Amino acid sequence: MPDAAQIRAAVDAYTELFSAGDRAAWLRLWASDATMEDPVGTPVKVGHEAIGRFYDESHGLADSIRLVRTGPVRIAAGEAAFPMQARPTIGAGELMVDIIDVMRFVDDETSPHGVVIAEMRAFWDPAETRPAD
Amino acid sequence: MPDAAQIRAAVDAYTELFSAGDRAAWLRLWASDATMEDPVGTPVKVGHEAIGRFYDESHGLADSIRLVRTGPVRIAAGEAAFPMQARPTIGAGELMVDIIDVMRFVDDETSPHGVVIAEMRAFWDPAETRPAD
Repeated sequence: MPDAAQIRAAVDAYTELFSAGDRAAWLRLWASDATMEDPVGTPVKVGHEAIGRFYDESHGLADSIRLVRTGPVRIAAGEAAFPMQARPTIGAGELMVDIIDVMRFVDDETSPHGVVIAEMRAFWDPAETRPAD
Repeated sequence: MPDAAQIRAAVDAYTELFSAGDRAAWLRLWASDATMEDPVGTPVKVGHEAIGRFYDESHGLADSIRLVRTGPVRIAAGEAAFPMQARPTIGAGELMVDIIDVMRFVDDETSPHGVVIAEMRAFWDPAETRPAD
């Protein structure tokens, strides 16, 4: 069972590496056969190639994009849920949208944090995107 | 598909009725065959009788207990996730613990909000309970 400290470190790396644009390090946070449903209700992406395309599309939509955690990570039985905002910058303006990511982790001694994401579901509505505060 | 306005109203009723101690009205927010996993990793409770016992146990542990939402409800494809705190009062002291509830809703024209909870999973760690701010 992935422990809470490992999961917290992996979640911090998840938002930091995505925001920093470090695609390769961010992809290493995922199991090779991981599933991603982002947003919930859209087709599930499977594996690094599909998840890497999602990363490219998210970054391609904006000049830059930050993920900012907005509250504590809740951990239970190897799963985690946390609130955050995606904040894309397009031209002179920053936008934001509220998201909750839910992730299931599995042990992986070869990964930087000892755990990797096996399954991820992201709860958000693109229609709620608005100018940042 | 349950719509977002119905889900938002049901989530507001969920925290308000639980906090107010209105057991019967709170239970009507759930489908008769609803499942509850609270916290994630514990045995799944099924149906009003088992979910009612959970309500009784939660309220029985404290003199009173409030659920306070701490951020926006994220809605996608008939599901919702939202951050909150449970705040039990025991004697002169209030405690708090951070939770994220994830709920799947289904349409139910006979219910007060037109939708009921079919499935709920609560992400939190009892060990994180601490004195309230």
